Amino acid sequence: MKNISFRDVTIGDGFWKDRQKINSEKTIYNVRDRFAETGRFDAFRFEWKDGMEKKPHIFWDSDIAKWIESVAYIIEKSPAPELEKQVDEVVDLMEKNQQPDGYFNIYFTVCEPDKRFSNRDWHELYCAGHLTEAAVAYYNATGKDKMLKIMCKYLDLIDRIFRVEDSAAFHTPGHEEIELALVKLYKCTGEEKWLRLSKYFIDRRGMQEEVPEDFWCSSKYYQSHLPCREQFTAEGHSVRACYLYAGMADIAFEYDDAQLKKACDALFDDIYYKKIYLTGGIGQSAVGEAFTVPYDLPNSRAYTETCAAIALVYFASRMQKMKVDSRLGDVIEKAIFNGILSGVSLDGSSFFYKNPLEFLHAERGRNVGVPKHHEPFPEAVRQRVFGCSCCPPNVTRFIASIGDYICGEDENTVYVHQYISSDVKTSQGTIRIETAYPYDGNIKITTGNTFKGALALRIPAFSKDSFTVTVNGNIRELTTENGYAYIDIDKASKIELTLDINPKTVYANPLVNEDAGKVAITAGPLVYCAESVDNGENLRALKAGATAGCRAEKNSELGTTDIIIKGKRLSQAAFNGGLYSYDRKYEPCEIRLIPFYACINRGECDMTVWLVSE
Amino acid sequence: MKNISFRDVTIGDGFWKDRQKINSEKTIYNVRDRFAETGRFDAFRFEWKDGMEKKPHIFWDSDIAKWIESVAYIIEKSPAPELEKQVDEVVDLMEKNQQPDGYFNIYFTVCEPDKRFSNRDWHELYCAGHLTEAAVAYYNATGKDKMLKIMCKYLDLIDRIFRVEDSAAFHTPGHEEIELALVKLYKCTGEEKWLRLSKYFIDRRGMQEEVPEDFWCSSKYYQSHLPCREQFTAEGHSVRACYLYAGMADIAFEYDDAQLKKACDALFDDIYYKKIYLTGGIGQSAVGEAFTVPYDLPNSRAYTETCAAIALVYFASRMQKMKVDSRLGDVIEKAIFNGILSGVSLDGSSFFYKNPLEFLHAERGRNVGVPKHHEPFPEAVRQRVFGCSCCPPNVTRFIASIGDYICGEDENTVYVHQYISSDVKTSQGTIRIETAYPYDGNIKITTGNTFKGALALRIPAFSKDSFTVTVNGNIRELTTENGYAYIDIDKASKIELTLDINPKTVYANPLVNEDAGKVAITAGPLVYCAESVDNGENLRALKAGATAGCRAEKNSELGTTDIIIKGKRLSQAAFNGGLYSYDRKYEPCEIRLIPFYACINRGECDMTVWLVSE
Repeated sequence: MKNISFRDVTIGDGFWKDRQKINSEKTIYNVRDRFAETGRFDAFRFEWKDGMEKKPHIFWDSDIAKWIESVAYIIEKSPAPELEKQVDEVVDLMEKNQQPDGYFNIYFTVCEPDKRFSNRDWHELYCAGHLTEAAVAYYNATGKDKMLKIMCKYLDLIDRIFRVEDSAAFHTPGHEEIELALVKLYKCTGEEKWLRLSKYFIDRRGMQEEVPEDFWCSSKYYQSHLPCREQFTAEGHSVRACYLYAGMADIAFEYDDAQLKKACDALFDDIYYKKIYLTGGIGQSAVGEAFTVPYDLPNSRAYTETCAAIALVYFASRMQKMKVDSRLGDVIEKAIFNGILSGVSLDGSSFFYKNPLEFLHAERGRNVGVPKHHEPFPEAVRQRVFGCSCCPPNVTRFIASIGDYICGEDENTVYVHQYISSDVKTSQGTIRIETAYPYDGNIKITTGNTFKGALALRIPAFSKDSFTVTVNGNIRELTTENGYAYIDIDKASKIELTLDINPKTVYANPLVNEDAGKVAITAGPLVYCAESVDNGENLRALKAGATAGCRAEKNSELGTTDIIIKGKRLSQAAFNGGLYSYDRKYEPCEIRLIPFYACINRGECDMTVWLVSE
Repeated sequence: MKNISFRDVTIGDGFWKDRQKINSEKTIYNVRDRFAETGRFDAFRFEWKDGMEKKPHIFWDSDIAKWIESVAYIIEKSPAPELEKQVDEVVDLMEKNQQPDGYFNIYFTVCEPDKRFSNRDWHELYCAGHLTEAAVAYYNATGKDKMLKIMCKYLDLIDRIFRVEDSAAFHTPGHEEIELALVKLYKCTGEEKWLRLSKYFIDRRGMQEEVPEDFWCSSKYYQSHLPCREQFTAEGHSVRACYLYAGMADIAFEYDDAQLKKACDALFDDIYYKKIYLTGGIGQSAVGEAFTVPYDLPNSRAYTETCAAIALVYFASRMQKMKVDSRLGDVIEKAIFNGILSGVSLDGSSFFYKNPLEFLHAERGRNVGVPKHHEPFPEAVRQRVFGCSCCPPNVTRFIASIGDYICGEDENTVYVHQYISSDVKTSQGTIRIETAYPYDGNIKITTGNTFKGALALRIPAFSKDSFTVTVNGNIRELTTENGYAYIDIDKASKIELTLDINPKTVYANPLVNEDAGKVAITAGPLVYCAESVDNGENLRALKAGATAGCRAEKNSELGTTDIIIKGKRLSQAAFNGGLYSYDRKYEPCEIRLIPFYACINRGECDMTVWLVSE
């Protein structure tokens, strides 16, 4: 099976076209300007000297790389000469400053030239990976191969140092990413050596101790505690982990490697059954930015980095090439409509690095006694840029290439994984998807005359018992297989799928301590949340009942459809100002819920996804 | 008003006599043996040299001091020649090693003699304070004044260095305690200079910056952010705070200082209305062992140090001399029956430093990625000794002197603050209290012929609407004044008070986020908890209803009376192994609750006070 690239997809009117417009007209420029202000572009001049301001950071190459990749995806669809010119300038600087042996890294050329390939944790191969992804994207978008050649030269050096000579101070990347980038380069150039190097890093990983002795020291943190083929539980830094798992899935697919595939299946299951938030967020703990133990899903302390949700989508979409399983598409859907999209403000100008499921501002003064050692709560409002600014350009490249996740196909079947208005070129001709999803459950799919085979529609878990399909106006009674409904088609057809997106109550497994006695409200793929700006302070005093009697209401300020449910509010009445009471009173109230992706767009306020349940 | 000392009290058969027996027959020896093993007694030889093991710690003097104080309280009631001999040996070593100018401190004589009085955080004055309390207690118990003289000589030096010359590198104690000790010394010796020095430390506190630049740096941590008379909220390290507040209350009482009294009132109210656990525990956060923000009362991360609850009782009991207010006795009662007593195992051999209201062992592996930086969860099982072992000898001295909290009196009235079987010598003759409280709500009080005046009985908040009083068999309809019921007595009388100790549901104020949607069960002063050893793993899956239909059951293993309530358990059925479900099922079950003070006495297990509420 293959995934159909966004390059073969034209996004149509609807939810994602609106997001892409903000992305290409505002966010890409906002990120550029912040990166310019902070010296990230100037760093490519290699002119920084000791004592100067704006010292290059070890991961600045990757920040600009992801920005270039974003630009490439945007100009692939519509020209943006100003952005393209700026990329060309960066590439020219790269050419000028590439070392004679091919090496290219700002920090280790300008700041610490004697430390090249000496510390596994210092993101060198990670930067090389992101620059490689950018080079491939930019070549695909423009046909310009200068950056691609620069990177191939650099990667030849990396191949020699790491694979042939094994002469670096470490053996595998401390921050994985290059593995999946090399597979992209292989597909772009057809040169198998890049696939071989990717496989080498995966084969070698976890074969010996190579954890640097530093603050974050732990082999699990680096996914180096076991050989990749023996890793069955998601561990350590969650972004590193899922970039690795994506690379493992690539290699499993390309080499038809059953052991790697088995590990990937187990890793996905471990996340799916034990370590994922309702929003698609992963990486529960700020300590190590890491996966923790099963069922440990704290809400207000959730780390749930935007990049981690994106990396999970990369992993899951690669798994879709190896098996038909609607859980993969369900996870991707959860992440794109919730835990990834929450990472950028509605106006496209500011970002969340962490996407917790709850903000309780009253508890943030805990460090009264010890200001230096406060608890690691997520930022209370979105930021325009971060010191470690991996997330903003990850969001821009992700939204620009959202078309990557819509369809897949094999010999006989076109799979519709995500319901996004679009024209998708398949080997059976172009199919058209039209929908106002996720705010409408109705999806129209039109196939052309050349379509002879099966159309497989993912039936999301929320609608598995209540979906309808018509083909050319006739109802089809369909069952699902691995979560997909299959329709045989032999002529131009109009298919209409209707999913049940009515608001539903959701409960967490009894093993999830954090959500005990709580309920969340979802509607279709959207997770909803309550904000104090709508519901008054002290959201934990609210008690939510069933969704029966709820109503939907357009919110013109946020551009959302909100849900208003009936609830109760615990009253102060019985307490007389005290902490504890033998009695309690609830007062009836309404609770306004907005989609999680739209949270914290009206200034600092409290927010919660999980409400105390009746 | 005055508090009647335990010296004028003989504890009768019942709950506390049993605890005192374990304390004087087992715990005092256990603590001694652990202290001997760890070198704390040997340290008084002043023979430690660089390179030797068991280097004295800056607070070892205070550990032995509290142990000596405990021995004094025990031998005051019944002889223990072996213990007394051992104290005498320590005192002889103190005499031998006291410096010519009076200075006495192990660490700063043996380990860092040039650092004397140089660092405010190094517990020097704290050690002096505890040694002073011990000297007073030992003199009272035995009439031996050697230790008292040693300490008076040392305190004369402290008075000169700190008050007269102001020549130390700091001005007030970093760890408060000496303030209240000096008041005890004043009462013992009648020498007003000790009272003056105590007042000096309180007057001087917060008048200038004197926070050492170190790990815990913060003026709030040290209660030095404001002059004492302007401190109205409880801040920073909770043990230091409450020892200070106790000293402030002493000085407020002795000097009839309205401003200090006002501050004490406000500090007590801040704790009572915003910062105390249901168990009487205080100091919410492990970070700084500190008070945090109002209504922040985390359960599984609660620090609630045993010493902090003891210090709170010291503060509250001193406040009882200045006003009649049953909230003071209520807090003392909560602490002694719950958050202090939980600090020692039922067999008297092991201890909790922290007394959290919940243990969830499944969440303790959070540090998978970063083992060096794990979250500061409380210890999972009781320990025989701690590196910082302030709590064990604090418990032994506290239990040995529990009689201190039973009665107070003023000209006309004897106040019964706590219901503990005892004979209490008052100026109106001895009164006898007989009760099986807290497991029985019936309390018999017998007064003699010499009693002419009022008897005031504290009516605990849990029983304020449902208590009965008979005098010589006749029912008296009584209202309460500041939470006390007053009975005029002019002849030998038998008073019977019956309190309602039926199990009750308790709810937390809507502002307490942590307890939202939860319920706790109490019976009289006892807080109850559920343990996994009784109720199976996964206590958060339980849902507790009303106490209607509950039953009591003797637990011979723990020596407790347990409560069995009807409840439900969230079933795995609807989840199919998944994390989230649109449906849920509860199964009926019984929930066994044991008193909190008896928790974690059957090996490591989960425990919770707060249960999900119907």
